[in-house]
Amino acid sequence: MRAAFYVCYILNHMVQYTQAHFNASFAALSDVTRRGVLEQLARADASITELAEKFDMTLTGMKKHVGVLEQAGLVTTEKVGRVRTCKLGLCRLEEEAAWIERYHQLWDARFDELDKVVGELKRKEKAHGRRKRK
Amino acid sequence: MRAAFYVCYILNHMVQYTQAHFNASFAALSDVTRRGVLEQLARADASITELAEKFDMTLTGMKKHVGVLEQAGLVTTEKVGRVRTCKLGLCRLEEEAAWIERYHQLWDARFDELDKVVGELKRKEKAHGRRKRK
Repeated sequence: MRAAFYVCYILNHMVQYTQAHFNASFAALSDVTRRGVLEQLARADASITELAEKFDMTLTGMKKHVGVLEQAGLVTTEKVGRVRTCKLGLCRLEEEAAWIERYHQLWDARFDELDKVVGELKRKEKAHGRRKRK
Repeated sequence: MRAAFYVCYILNHMVQYTQAHFNASFAALSDVTRRGVLEQLARADASITELAEKFDMTLTGMKKHVGVLEQAGLVTTEKVGRVRTCKLGLCRLEEEAAWIERYHQLWDARFDELDKVVGELKRKEKAHGRRKRK
């Protein structure tokens, strides 16, 4: 009984962790500058100052964006002397891609189902029309 | 010259539209209740009241969530009498999936590049060690 409780407890924590991670990563992607920073860092590492210049922002503004990306595991930063260098993080957005893929499948299944219902209604309407004409 | 200007103007608008759409759809996905509502509507249409009950929320709270999903084109709603029914919208998150897929490729390329740099450094270090021993 106690083992089952622990398994439930751990599973519940895992689900909560994934959900919190999804919240953070999708929120990080919901801004054009942050998506731009990711595309930029995929080409080369950059300092906060370089990123701020490239995206025509204040240092404070860029620090906030990098903080959001860092929280989501999409970026890591390292301070050497006065320069904070930003690199891509270990999160490859794989789970997020899997969630969207599963949603595609559900979406397709739902619309196929609706298509069938509409098709059935059309057939019934046609049959009804034919009976009326007789 | 004027034609080129119009082409640029239209392209610029298209890019801005896509970026605004991405902002809205990723923001819509950044909440566990909103992701749950999408999964629920992929199974069957539901009224706001039913969704509020299912997710243990107030009607006002659920209306706000549905509003965010509607703005992103992920949900459509229709009011018949007093009941507002929610259905899946036409947005299948295809462009969002494509963005993430492209990011995967950039991410892989970046880490492959870094692997090569590390490999090169290791080789040089080994060669340097051998020379020292001689």
